[in-house]
Amino acid sequence: MRALLGSGGFRTEERRALYNEEMRRHFGDVSRVLFVPYALHDHEKYTRMMTERGLDAGYEIDGIHRHDDPVKAVREAEAISVGGGNTFRLTADMHRLGLFDAIRSRVIDDDIPYMGVSAGTNVACPTMQTTNDMPITMPSSFDALGLVPFQVNAHYYAGSIWVKEDDEFVEHFGETRDDRIREFHEMNDTPVVGLWEAGFIRVEDRSFELVGASARVFRKGCDAYDVQPGSKLVELA
Amino acid sequence: MRALLGSGGFRTEERRALYNEEMRRHFGDVSRVLFVPYALHDHEKYTRMMTERGLDAGYEIDGIHRHDDPVKAVREAEAISVGGGNTFRLTADMHRLGLFDAIRSRVIDDDIPYMGVSAGTNVACPTMQTTNDMPITMPSSFDALGLVPFQVNAHYYAGSIWVKEDDEFVEHFGETRDDRIREFHEMNDTPVVGLWEAGFIRVEDRSFELVGASARVFRKGCDAYDVQPGSKLVELA
Repeated sequence: MRALLGSGGFRTEERRALYNEEMRRHFGDVSRVLFVPYALHDHEKYTRMMTERGLDAGYEIDGIHRHDDPVKAVREAEAISVGGGNTFRLTADMHRLGLFDAIRSRVIDDDIPYMGVSAGTNVACPTMQTTNDMPITMPSSFDALGLVPFQVNAHYYAGSIWVKEDDEFVEHFGETRDDRIREFHEMNDTPVVGLWEAGFIRVEDRSFELVGASARVFRKGCDAYDVQPGSKLVELA
Repeated sequence: MRALLGSGGFRTEERRALYNEEMRRHFGDVSRVLFVPYALHDHEKYTRMMTERGLDAGYEIDGIHRHDDPVKAVREAEAISVGGGNTFRLTADMHRLGLFDAIRSRVIDDDIPYMGVSAGTNVACPTMQTTNDMPITMPSSFDALGLVPFQVNAHYYAGSIWVKEDDEFVEHFGETRDDRIREFHEMNDTPVVGLWEAGFIRVEDRSFELVGASARVFRKGCDAYDVQPGSKLVELA
């Protein structure tokens, strides 16, 4: 089983270069990638944007919404990529269309490569419950693909956030990410990997290698610890 | 119908003073306030903390978890306050215990005053879908009290956020609040009030007065606009 799970925030030239390099390394010599754009409202615009913004690594990006039968499109795909946006909307559509079973089967049984970024990483986890997104719609279930045995919190950061008011930085007092993940562990047991922006986890069966950014690992009842890029998340294997 | 809806972030001395002043103005000469602490894990600790941190305005804070029959406690309450924390957990418990109907009836039909902060403000809205919280548990429904005809996004801020890495401010590329609220309006029609930290909305039937901080009003298909403290949200009445 091969998956490439990105955090998001690929907005600088350096980060886009890493994105393309990792995508190419992951998908190899397939020609076309089936792209799931359901996390954004306008599927066609999103699919075109992937090429326009240079996030295609030279592959043909084939939006799943262009297919009359999305499950059949998954069955015939050589490579699958799921983009970011709103995870609740993505999850709702994927359940409605039967895509969780279809993609899980194709990636686990048929060994085709899966790539997810942000919301696409959330849905690769056992559930989508470590999303940062707003619940703009209710999915039939929070369950997701379960390609990895841990949750990822994408766009992770440590500590407080600051906002600008009249060009001054003002500390914001909403819950930090660590607060939110602690709350997750008050009701759930699955480990959580807080993945900083521009980071990827290269997944090969039970091998999880961190690339591009560091991550913080949260296990229920344990102290969190940081893992540097280039390392493997050995404790989660 | 009387409600006082706070954003959160009451962590400075000045903000706590405003909190106490507004709470006292709102609840008047009742002696005891029924407090709903379900948004945090430890109900008793949370209830005690309200007094220990000086967020009681001199009232006796009576945790609803201390009552064998929480619906009966609501029926007998003279004033109700719902605290912040995780909105999914709060909503799940309130649905499970039948508290939405009980509180709605007491506040709308019997005219007792309701106060909510952060998650407690989210559940005063038609749904809890403009929360910023992590979906750590799935409530049976996203529907909420509907005391006001709009959604509130608590802890609102405009623009990007910054995080500190090695004492340097680094811009974070996750969705902004305005992005999230735009996504909400791609799937929902209800207006959204983005309420900055330390702000309150004083609700009296269809009068909505802003106190302590400004707010940004988002209506589907319209440009957002800012409202200053001391003003009324006239367009939402």
